[in-house]
Amino acid sequence: MSDGAAGRLIGVGVGPGDPELITLKAVRALGEADVVAFFAKLGNASHARTIAHRHFRAGAVELPLLYPVTTEMPKDEAPYKSAITGFYDASAQAVAAHLDAGRTVAVLSEGDPMFYGSYMHLHVRLADRYDTQVIAGVTGMSGCWSQAGAPIAQGDDVLSVLPGTLAEAELARRLTEADAAVIMKVGRNLPKIRRALQTAGKLERAVYVERGTMSDSHCVPLASRAEGPAPYFAIVLVPGWGGRA
Amino acid sequence: MSDGAAGRLIGVGVGPGDPELITLKAVRALGEADVVAFFAKLGNASHARTIAHRHFRAGAVELPLLYPVTTEMPKDEAPYKSAITGFYDASAQAVAAHLDAGRTVAVLSEGDPMFYGSYMHLHVRLADRYDTQVIAGVTGMSGCWSQAGAPIAQGDDVLSVLPGTLAEAELARRLTEADAAVIMKVGRNLPKIRRALQTAGKLERAVYVERGTMSDSHCVPLASRAEGPAPYFAIVLVPGWGGRA
Repeated sequence: MSDGAAGRLIGVGVGPGDPELITLKAVRALGEADVVAFFAKLGNASHARTIAHRHFRAGAVELPLLYPVTTEMPKDEAPYKSAITGFYDASAQAVAAHLDAGRTVAVLSEGDPMFYGSYMHLHVRLADRYDTQVIAGVTGMSGCWSQAGAPIAQGDDVLSVLPGTLAEAELARRLTEADAAVIMKVGRNLPKIRRALQTAGKLERAVYVERGTMSDSHCVPLASRAEGPAPYFAIVLVPGWGGRA
Repeated sequence: MSDGAAGRLIGVGVGPGDPELITLKAVRALGEADVVAFFAKLGNASHARTIAHRHFRAGAVELPLLYPVTTEMPKDEAPYKSAITGFYDASAQAVAAHLDAGRTVAVLSEGDPMFYGSYMHLHVRLADRYDTQVIAGVTGMSGCWSQAGAPIAQGDDVLSVLPGTLAEAELARRLTEADAAVIMKVGRNLPKIRRALQTAGKLERAVYVERGTMSDSHCVPLASRAEGPAPYFAIVLVPGWGGRA
């Protein structure tokens, strides 16, 4: 710890992909940050950095937090969990070292930092020890349903955000009970998701969205999409409101 | 219809309240729009206009869409529904007149236009007839959980967005089944919401947020909040993830 006051931690939502869907508040925070941290996979560019780097102040220190290589490890088992927990602990320590030196550290987060974002792993480790601010961002799902022109929920609609990893029967039951739904983590779960929507009687309303608000985004009725692999970050929307007015 | 090409309709999300939580894309759209439309109640300022008016281009035409006075009408009955439907029809016609004259019309929406927003009533009436774009915004709920510093959902969490208008048993059941929840339309439903959270065993985790990201926002554990009236736009958050890391 330095003699001076500790710095400030800022979780910065940079939005869903379109570089213009970043907020004025995020832009200002990035222009003021001494250090900009972001999660990335070794050898892959950080999407969040790609969106936001034009707003970094000149001379800002970049702190990439590189996920350990765990592709061979089963994700439900102890060695993977231990590797990931250790990685988040080490990442928090790396950020804390800058905070202790009195620097302001912005941590980039695609979408919204508190909504399924990696930033949360740092937040729970640091927010009780340092002055912390979270800047909300446009979520990936908002970007998707706006791009799709799909009014998602209105009035007394219940909206459920569901991971595509749920078991088929559970997914079908929850889809039946929700007026509107967003299914995340599509990837290899797409055939199962399609069957669950069919069971719930909602396949005809479902919209498949790939690459959210990127310039090459792709949005089609799920019923007309071919079977076959889907990217992990594709999402499926089930609008709860449309014809009603 | 004029002889020239019709104008463009843009649903513009202006974010949850903090004027800095508007996107660069929304700012650009407002700077280019010939007409800026917004819903408001007679005698009340539009929150969306308050957030966004600094970005209107000089000389832009403002088109307030004033809700009919229906405070004496029961909301479940035909006269109210007929008055509201007629109002949305007339509002769409007023917007269409500008579009037919070749003007670009931006319609302001607090939060995100497609997420419980009034803009949707215009979208379903106009989007199939005019070139239409929707600009996603930061939702009120993102603004609230960021302000509260509450990591809301992570990994395979199921998140449910529930209206406080649901019956108590139904609310309790859905709260029990969700890992994380956002309860909207709190207002007079707060005592019922509190009981439902108690039944679901989640009262201790619930956070009460008033005035989202306004400068006078107010955020307390629900368990410690006094009984008594709550504003309609207050929300209750049940974070699904926090201690886990």
